[in-house]
Amino acid sequence: MEDLQINRERLQQALHEVNAVAVTEQGGVNRQALTDADRAARDLLVLWMQEVELEVRVDDLGTIYGRRRGAETGPPVVLGSHLDSVPNGGRFDGALGVVAALEVMRVAHERRIQTRLPLVLVDFTNEEGARFEPAMMASGVLAGRFTRDYVYARTDSTGRTFGDELARIGYVGAEGNRLTEASAYLELHVEQGPVLDVENCPVGIVEGIQGISWMQATFTGEADHAGPTPMGFRRDALTAAARLITGVQAMARKMGDPAVATVGRIEVEPGIINVIPGSATLGVDVRHPQGEGLETLKAGVEELSREVAAAEGVAIHFEHLWTSPPTPFDREVIELLEEVARELGLKYRRMVSGAGHDAKYVAEFAPAAMIFVRSRDGVSHSPKEHSEWDEIHQAAQLLLHGALRLTQ
Amino acid sequence: MEDLQINRERLQQALHEVNAVAVTEQGGVNRQALTDADRAARDLLVLWMQEVELEVRVDDLGTIYGRRRGAETGPPVVLGSHLDSVPNGGRFDGALGVVAALEVMRVAHERRIQTRLPLVLVDFTNEEGARFEPAMMASGVLAGRFTRDYVYARTDSTGRTFGDELARIGYVGAEGNRLTEASAYLELHVEQGPVLDVENCPVGIVEGIQGISWMQATFTGEADHAGPTPMGFRRDALTAAARLITGVQAMARKMGDPAVATVGRIEVEPGIINVIPGSATLGVDVRHPQGEGLETLKAGVEELSREVAAAEGVAIHFEHLWTSPPTPFDREVIELLEEVARELGLKYRRMVSGAGHDAKYVAEFAPAAMIFVRSRDGVSHSPKEHSEWDEIHQAAQLLLHGALRLTQ
Repeated sequence: MEDLQINRERLQQALHEVNAVAVTEQGGVNRQALTDADRAARDLLVLWMQEVELEVRVDDLGTIYGRRRGAETGPPVVLGSHLDSVPNGGRFDGALGVVAALEVMRVAHERRIQTRLPLVLVDFTNEEGARFEPAMMASGVLAGRFTRDYVYARTDSTGRTFGDELARIGYVGAEGNRLTEASAYLELHVEQGPVLDVENCPVGIVEGIQGISWMQATFTGEADHAGPTPMGFRRDALTAAARLITGVQAMARKMGDPAVATVGRIEVEPGIINVIPGSATLGVDVRHPQGEGLETLKAGVEELSREVAAAEGVAIHFEHLWTSPPTPFDREVIELLEEVARELGLKYRRMVSGAGHDAKYVAEFAPAAMIFVRSRDGVSHSPKEHSEWDEIHQAAQLLLHGALRLTQ
Repeated sequence: MEDLQINRERLQQALHEVNAVAVTEQGGVNRQALTDADRAARDLLVLWMQEVELEVRVDDLGTIYGRRRGAETGPPVVLGSHLDSVPNGGRFDGALGVVAALEVMRVAHERRIQTRLPLVLVDFTNEEGARFEPAMMASGVLAGRFTRDYVYARTDSTGRTFGDELARIGYVGAEGNRLTEASAYLELHVEQGPVLDVENCPVGIVEGIQGISWMQATFTGEADHAGPTPMGFRRDALTAAARLITGVQAMARKMGDPAVATVGRIEVEPGIINVIPGSATLGVDVRHPQGEGLETLKAGVEELSREVAAAEGVAIHFEHLWTSPPTPFDREVIELLEEVARELGLKYRRMVSGAGHDAKYVAEFAPAAMIFVRSRDGVSHSPKEHSEWDEIHQAAQLLLHGALRLTQ
C-alpha cells in the first residue's frame, strides 16, 4: 500500500484548474449549476476523463459518468461528488471530491491496475440547490425523490428553467445513462463543520447523515404605531418570534449534542422602525442523527411556537415544510474504510454528517459511505473555507485504497 | 357658544370628498405626498378656500395657506394639519385636521365673524414621510431643521426627487410665503393610539409630544451551516438580536407607562433557513415625554446591546440614529383649550402624544397645542382606522371655539 500513492501535486493542480474559471474577487468560487462556469468545469472534467480512457456518458439530468472497465461487468464501484457551488463558496466543497476521484482514476490508469469490478467517476448536477432549489436534485431523481419533469421546470431567480439551462450548456444526455446500481459509492468531501478541527483529527469516516426538518412559524399580532401604543396594549409579533428563537436554541442545548436547532431567517411586516410588527415569519431547521431525536425536536418546536403565541396574545400559523429522515450509511463499507485507514496508519474518527450530500440519496439504492477532510474552523460556503493539503492527501489515500479494495 | 356650531354634515362631506380620489381597495386612502392624488386633494382645498374668500398662498415647500383677514394685522392664529397619507392609511389621519380647520373658516365666513387677529388654514406638505423621508418635512424647514436644498433632493423609492415632484404637481410657491410667526397654532388630529379609547374619553387636549430616539444595533457573528455546527460552537447573530428584542421590551415595562420601546425592523444575513445568521441588524425606537426618561431608555438600549453581544460572543456596532427631544406645548394655549372644553361641557383628558406631528416643529416658534379625537381600538395607518362622528363633532367644536377665543 505504501507503494501506491495518489499524486498530491497533480491533485492540487486539478483542483486549481477546475476552479480557475470560477474564482471570485473574494477568493471564493462561483460555479452555480448550469452556468457558463459550470460548463467550463464540466468540459475540463470530460477532457480529463478521456485522457485516462474513461468511457464518458451523460444522463438526462446532466450528471456526468466516466467508466473504467473491470475484469467483470458487475455493478461498478462509484466515486464522486459535485462541481457546482454556492454563489461565493469555498474552493474545496464538492470539487475536491470530483478531482480526488479523478486522481484515483489517474493512478489506476498510469499503474495499469486491473480491477475486478468497473470503477465509475461521477459529477452530480446541482448538489447545492443554490441556483435551482431544492438541493441534491440529480441524485434525488436517481433515488426516485423527484421526477425529471419537476426538475426541468425548476426556475432560478431570473425565471430561467433548469431544463432550458441544461440544454443551453449542452449537457442533456440519455435517461438510459442514469446510475441505477452500484456495488458501492464513496464520496470524499470537506466536513463543512468544526468537529474534526476541534478534535484535531484530519479525517472522518462518515456513518450517516443527520435527519433534517424544516418548519415555518408565522406569528400575527397587530401592527400599531410605536409611539402612541403603551406596552400593555401591544400584540407584537416580533416578541413571540424572539421568544421562539431563544427557546428553540435552549431546547437543542438541553437535548445535548448532536441535536441542533437554527433559526436562519426571519421576516417582519411592515418592517419599519416606528411600527410594532404585525407579523413575523421564522424558518426553523432542526437536525438529529436518530429518527426519534428528530421527532422530539420537531414536536418541541411546534409546541413552543404555540406556547409563545398564546403567551403573547398573537395568532400562530405553523407549518412542517420538509423532513429528511436520518440516513445511515452501509456498515460493511464503513468497516472496510476503517480497516484501510488503520492499515494506512491514518488518524481518523467516525462521525455523522450534519449536512446533506448526494451520498444520502445514493445510499437509498447502493451501499454508500463518505470520507471527510477537516475544515479549518469548520467554515464552509465561504471564501474562507480551507483544508490542509497534507490532510487532503490522507483522505485521498483512503479513497484510493478503499475504492480498490471495494473493486476486488 | 351653543349658538355657534360647526356643521357636522358639511364637515363629514368635506372629508368624504377629499378622500374620494384616494380610496384604496381595502377602504383606506393612498394620498402620498406629491402624487396625483395629493394634487387632486390640494386643488379641492384651494377651491374651498377661495369659496370662503381666503387669500391663498403656497410656499416653496408646497405648503398651502389660506388667510382670513382680522381687524388687526398681528401674527395670525393658525389651524391645520396635513393632507398626505401613508400608502394604505386611514381616512381621518391628517385630512380630518385640515377639513376641521376649513369648517372653522366656513362657520366664520357664513356667520361673518370679525376676529381681531387673522386666521390661517394650513396644509403642511409631507407630514408622513412615507414617500419622501423624513417625516414632518415642510414644518421641519419652518423650524430650521432642514434646508430647502436637502428637502428638494430627497428621493422616493423610484428615484424621483421631492423637488421634481413638487414642480410636477404645480405647487412650487415663494419662500416669502412661509409661515414665520403665529399667535397660536392648533391642530386637530386622531389620536392614533388607544389611550382615549381605553379610558372611554372622546377628546384629548395634548400637552406635548414625547421625545423619540431611534437606534440601530448590528450584531456580527459567524455564518455557518446549520447542520455540521454543534450548538456550543456557534456565534449566532440572531440569538443576540432575540435577547435584545425581549430585553428592551422588559426595560420599558419596568420603567412603566409612558415609556415605550419597540423593535420594528430586523434583517438577518444571509437569511437562509439552513445557515446560522452571520449578522443581524435591528432598529429600535424608544419614547418618553421627559428628557431624563428618554436618556435613560437610550442608555439602557445601548448597554443591553453591548451586554447581549458579549454574552453571545458576537461583535456589536451600535448607532444612535436620531433623537427628537420631548416637545412641551404652550401652557397658556392648553389652559385656554381646557377652559373652552369645560364651557362646552366636553369630556376630555390631558395627554401626551406618542407620535410626531407638524405641531411639534411649529411649537418651536409659536405657542401650539393639539386636540385629539379618540381612535377606535387605537388603530391608525390602516384602513381600519376609525373615529365616531359624534366625537369628531365635539373635538371640532373645541377647535372652533378655541380658535375664536385665541383670535380675540
